[in-house]
Amino acid sequence: MEAGEGVSSATPTEEMNGAGNLMDFLDEPFPDVGTYEDFHTIDWLREKSRDTDRHRKITSKSKESFWELIKSLLDAWSGWVVMLLIGLLSGTLAGVIDLAVDWMTDLKEGVCLSAFWYSHEQCCWTSNETTFDDRDKCPQWQKWAELMTGHAEGAGAYVLNYFLYVLWALLFSFLAVSLVRVFAPYACGSGIPEIKTILSGFIIRGYLGKWTLLIKTVTLVLAVSSGLSLGKEGPLVHVACCCGNLFCSLFSKYSKNEGKRREVLSAAAAAGVSVAFGAPIGGVLFSLEEVSYYFPLKTLWRSFFAALVAAFTLRSINPFGNSRLVLFYVEYHTPWYMAELVPFILLGVFGGLWGTLFIRANIAWCRRRKTTQLGKYPVLEVIAVTGITAVLAFPNPYTRRSTSELISELFNDCGALESSQLCDYINNPNMSRPVDDIPDRPAGPGVYNALWQLALALVFKIVITIFTFGMKIPSGLFIPSMAVGAIAGRIVGIAVEQMAYHHHDWIIFKNWCRPGADCVTPGLYAMVGAAACLGGVTRMTVSLVVIMFELTGGLEYIVPLMAAAVTSKWVADAFGKEGIYESHIQLNGYPYLDVRDEFTHRTLATDVMRPRRNDPPLAVLTQDTTTVEDVEALIKDTDYNGFPVVVSRESERLIGFVQRRDLTLAIKTARQKQDGVVSSSVVYFTEDAPQLPASNPQPLKLRRILNLSPFTVTDHTPMETVVDIFRKLGLRQCLVTRSGRLLGIITKKDVLRHMAQMMNQDPESIMFN
Amino acid sequence: MEAGEGVSSATPTEEMNGAGNLMDFLDEPFPDVGTYEDFHTIDWLREKSRDTDRHRKITSKSKESFWELIKSLLDAWSGWVVMLLIGLLSGTLAGVIDLAVDWMTDLKEGVCLSAFWYSHEQCCWTSNETTFDDRDKCPQWQKWAELMTGHAEGAGAYVLNYFLYVLWALLFSFLAVSLVRVFAPYACGSGIPEIKTILSGFIIRGYLGKWTLLIKTVTLVLAVSSGLSLGKEGPLVHVACCCGNLFCSLFSKYSKNEGKRREVLSAAAAAGVSVAFGAPIGGVLFSLEEVSYYFPLKTLWRSFFAALVAAFTLRSINPFGNSRLVLFYVEYHTPWYMAELVPFILLGVFGGLWGTLFIRANIAWCRRRKTTQLGKYPVLEVIAVTGITAVLAFPNPYTRRSTSELISELFNDCGALESSQLCDYINNPNMSRPVDDIPDRPAGPGVYNALWQLALALVFKIVITIFTFGMKIPSGLFIPSMAVGAIAGRIVGIAVEQMAYHHHDWIIFKNWCRPGADCVTPGLYAMVGAAACLGGVTRMTVSLVVIMFELTGGLEYIVPLMAAAVTSKWVADAFGKEGIYESHIQLNGYPYLDVRDEFTHRTLATDVMRPRRNDPPLAVLTQDTTTVEDVEALIKDTDYNGFPVVVSRESERLIGFVQRRDLTLAIKTARQKQDGVVSSSVVYFTEDAPQLPASNPQPLKLRRILNLSPFTVTDHTPMETVVDIFRKLGLRQCLVTRSGRLLGIITKKDVLRHMAQMMNQDPESIMFN
Repeated sequence: MEAGEGVSSATPTEEMNGAGNLMDFLDEPFPDVGTYEDFHTIDWLREKSRDTDRHRKITSKSKESFWELIKSLLDAWSGWVVMLLIGLLSGTLAGVIDLAVDWMTDLKEGVCLSAFWYSHEQCCWTSNETTFDDRDKCPQWQKWAELMTGHAEGAGAYVLNYFLYVLWALLFSFLAVSLVRVFAPYACGSGIPEIKTILSGFIIRGYLGKWTLLIKTVTLVLAVSSGLSLGKEGPLVHVACCCGNLFCSLFSKYSKNEGKRREVLSAAAAAGVSVAFGAPIGGVLFSLEEVSYYFPLKTLWRSFFAALVAAFTLRSINPFGNSRLVLFYVEYHTPWYMAELVPFILLGVFGGLWGTLFIRANIAWCRRRKTTQLGKYPVLEVIAVTGITAVLAFPNPYTRRSTSELISELFNDCGALESSQLCDYINNPNMSRPVDDIPDRPAGPGVYNALWQLALALVFKIVITIFTFGMKIPSGLFIPSMAVGAIAGRIVGIAVEQMAYHHHDWIIFKNWCRPGADCVTPGLYAMVGAAACLGGVTRMTVSLVVIMFELTGGLEYIVPLMAAAVTSKWVADAFGKEGIYESHIQLNGYPYLDVRDEFTHRTLATDVMRPRRNDPPLAVLTQDTTTVEDVEALIKDTDYNGFPVVVSRESERLIGFVQRRDLTLAIKTARQKQDGVVSSSVVYFTEDAPQLPASNPQPLKLRRILNLSPFTVTDHTPMETVVDIFRKLGLRQCLVTRSGRLLGIITKKDVLRHMAQMMNQDPESIMFN
Repeated sequence: MEAGEGVSSATPTEEMNGAGNLMDFLDEPFPDVGTYEDFHTIDWLREKSRDTDRHRKITSKSKESFWELIKSLLDAWSGWVVMLLIGLLSGTLAGVIDLAVDWMTDLKEGVCLSAFWYSHEQCCWTSNETTFDDRDKCPQWQKWAELMTGHAEGAGAYVLNYFLYVLWALLFSFLAVSLVRVFAPYACGSGIPEIKTILSGFIIRGYLGKWTLLIKTVTLVLAVSSGLSLGKEGPLVHVACCCGNLFCSLFSKYSKNEGKRREVLSAAAAAGVSVAFGAPIGGVLFSLEEVSYYFPLKTLWRSFFAALVAAFTLRSINPFGNSRLVLFYVEYHTPWYMAELVPFILLGVFGGLWGTLFIRANIAWCRRRKTTQLGKYPVLEVIAVTGITAVLAFPNPYTRRSTSELISELFNDCGALESSQLCDYINNPNMSRPVDDIPDRPAGPGVYNALWQLALALVFKIVITIFTFGMKIPSGLFIPSMAVGAIAGRIVGIAVEQMAYHHHDWIIFKNWCRPGADCVTPGLYAMVGAAACLGGVTRMTVSLVVIMFELTGGLEYIVPLMAAAVTSKWVADAFGKEGIYESHIQLNGYPYLDVRDEFTHRTLATDVMRPRRNDPPLAVLTQDTTTVEDVEALIKDTDYNGFPVVVSRESERLIGFVQRRDLTLAIKTARQKQDGVVSSSVVYFTEDAPQLPASNPQPLKLRRILNLSPFTVTDHTPMETVVDIFRKLGLRQCLVTRSGRLLGIITKKDVLRHMAQMMNQDPESIMFN
């Protein structure tokens, strides 16, 4: 996928402003002037200026009549309406997805006889025969083997269940990949790299379309239910952005302005994370920190609104059946101690290393997929990976269940009523058991058994996730990363806990872990590990900690989380600055100018601009000596997206910039509609064309498509300033002058290319700071 | 106070980069070149570029030796060290201030006999004779009258207590204003308007100095203790920023670069709010939304770190004695109901109206203070206001105590063990009383009595705050605004509660308020009211809701808070876009370019640039024909902060921009040190000066102080784009060209003046959107 840019920021309206002429920009003289082609970059300044024009017009009209006033008020409120709609729809979709995933995940193992649309949990809830100790067993819920053969136990039943588990998984993933292939190829992956690119001002038509929305929602359910090592969080952001795009089309304010549209999409991304984790503030910060490019304060506020509406819509659907907003609700009863920072930081190091390993391995594998035969058989690949995943996952109870359930169990503190194997501690019979605050106890055989299974699950998850992320199905990375971290964290947590129990007299435990005290919470370690791994992979920092904070709801545990997140980021950054999303953006070659990369090299604009030393001279138009023929030849011979206009070739004084697309359209229209415009007609970019004798061909006046305020820098401008300008103003191109003479042009692509070049030469210079 | 700008962005290093020459910018040929004068604006691009140079140098040096590598690592980590120090110091200061305020506030009423440094609460805690029902009475704590006359009750004792209360208040406020006057005039006010201005790139020397820090800390305690209607939250932000500035001076990376310094200050502001409310996330968002100008992601992360360290330092000092991080910890047990949104929105309207009223009245009063005799007697003013406040406050128990205690009581839910007058409900004797979940009850006489006192307190607070904010003592606005809102909210809450109790059968109460149910929480109304009023005054939105969310710690109540905050903002914005801080910035005439103002007018650069139509031509220098004498005459005759340099007066081709300060310094140095430089010497800005015969005076080569990459726009550029460029790139001035010819110059001041002009002409055009 190649990006084109270098197209001008000319709008006819801007020129009109100059003349002080109140022209209606809706009936532009040349249709389609001012829109963008697919895979092109938008011009932020121009979009902003167009919106101001629109707004100005509405404001001035609103004084004319009451109806216009109402219309202007509706226009002012449309942003909030869009936010409300996005919140409602994305909350609803998230709820539906949650319910469907729950049901279909359980369908792999069995079915509810009383109502087949009940998931395992719902089935046994509604049953009267369920006891508290055996919460997940009830006669209504039957495993496939029991249903088909009548035997619930035994080797035969196990094999049959195993077989059907794999079969269902294959069926789900086959359906998912087929739907993606046939209906919406853009529905694959997590979508976050592309959304980052789109938000930075790139056009990918259809990426946020209705079909993508529909197919991504359906296939996300299938993919998650198939038991593959992937999550629904990233794709939910994509789904929310599709909702945002959908509602943009209701209002011309947003549908006709690519800049305004992106404000809505930023807010939609916040809503997506908000429903993914039940963390509205974390969602807004995620959008701010991770995905958005242009994030004015107004968007901050609206994002927050959308995120809240989405979260509350999801809660009123109540898919988890516990009135909780958050995905993993945890409550710990023990504070943490200073000495525990050591294992927390070690978990941070683990997270950083895993992040680096994962990114490198995954990118290598994805590159192989792109470049070799492998990429030609996406369906087969998905089937194969699903088969391997299902076959390996079934025997281990920690991988058989859905990953979010696993994480939830790992995060949990072992209360007195916990029946999980992980909580199989040897209790002191003399001890009265309060519900909270259970002292440290020696681990029972169940715990040791669970530890082995967790270790196996850890290896399995680490390996399989590398091959899963990037396949042609919707696949999020948050949940698998968190699972890896949570498993590692829980293992470390139990180890520390047992060490503290058996060695109260060790100097490090002496102060904070007396016998009979409740001093180590393994669940907290799992949470810290999850944060560390997620941080290592995505390089999120503030939003990560805030999301985790919203899960626990207390500031108490923010320091451990922060220590792990910081360590993980530093460790991972030491091996390479880029997170998984930036790596995928690079892999796909999207023109993304990262706000976080600092450009610290000593190059100047003159080193980057085209034409280079031995290139042919810059293709320019003159203001009053070029003929239509010349222009057409220039358009044919070059593939530049725009051309500077100068007073004359001798003086090289710049007067403006004209966009290739606008020029082509204008000449085409003129040739069709304007009498006397022939190949030898002279094109005038000046304010007034001279009165020519009738025998001469009619001149073509094109000043209205000329951008009279092109962006210029001098050849001595340091490239870091140029990069800054491109980033902050969202430019597509910039002209280079010296003493008022036009020397060359720098496009966004040139900047990106130059940056990549400089980084590779000297990557460690940007490692710190 | 007048701001100068228009000074060039030239640095010798930039020029050196151009020549590819690795020059050490620390020994610049002309001392002081590149620093700023007081009340001038910094050039963000240039500061950034200087920092990159510095960083580049350290990186390249780090390869030379192990010691240099260590130094470069230390440099990379210095940012985190500064954050840690800021967190520690501002947390400690906040704790000390809290403790001191507690003690001195109580000192106005009495003294602890067992240990005079105990506050009332501490005194009775440590006493064995305190009973639970009479928590605030113990023999060790004696009111002044009791101590002096032996009688605790009676009219005489009341009058004596009254008198001493007023006397102490006068003493405290007199001390506060005197200290401010004598030692640190900048210590007055809340400091937030000035910090906003400083962060936007303005230099106010001493505003964040050591003296200001010391005096502000001391006088803040005095001012708050004196019982004036002011809070410590805003000034704490100022104190934290002073800490930030103090620690900047430890590292040349921050002390020598005004841009980097401002990154630290942004983080310090976050730490300030974090300790003010115990809300670290809210603090970061406050810094992002309200005060900061340039807030890169790196700063976000570091701010978060500083805010957390500060919050935890404060908690370990534990000034409130309850291990809580937050200022007003509340826990409600009842959910809210949809129908309650109506009173919540009404509170929002009230908040918006109060915000508007307060801003208008306060600005009018402050303008009067600035322009009339009133401003000449600041000490007298403070004494007078304190006297009136104390005299009026003493008789009413709700105004006598400190405002934060009042707010805390208003926020509280009436539990079964509450002894406050506000909780004097008539209990059903048959009812067993669980600690939580108390059903609605009829109000007792205490409640009605409290309502009257609260209504009086409301009027009193509303009026007195207008006169208090802006006096020459440290004064924050958060607490008084919240108090007004909390009082109004509690009154509304009790009204709704009683209505619901007495009219169960009304259609609106039928569904959610059956008899015996606990359906209305007046404390929540107080909180919503506080948020509304704070929002109306400051126009904070996201950070406000997040701070409130951190107080309650649950997402449950975010919708009411949000509804009130949004309504309040909309209502207040309808009467004027500016919050109290922006209004004070305007009143003081600081050159602050607000990121939130949208410029939507159709003017062009040519309408704003100087020289205007009938002005004398632009003062320019030529590259090789101006003599030293000419330059000196130009400097003497004009007060411009910089001059464009052109090829020749005829061609008007721009080659660079030179700063007045640099020019003066360079000529002075050259005249002293360089032989042969006399008045008739020609100044050369070209790369090479021609070889002149020995008889001619020596030329003066000044290319190294010339900025070769001045920022230019064309005369046709719409002003909205120019404003955007100034805002986003932090420019000080920008040159205007047409077809490569220099036409004029636009400085930040011109932009601000133009914006103010346009706003006044047509203010409603920017009301919505």
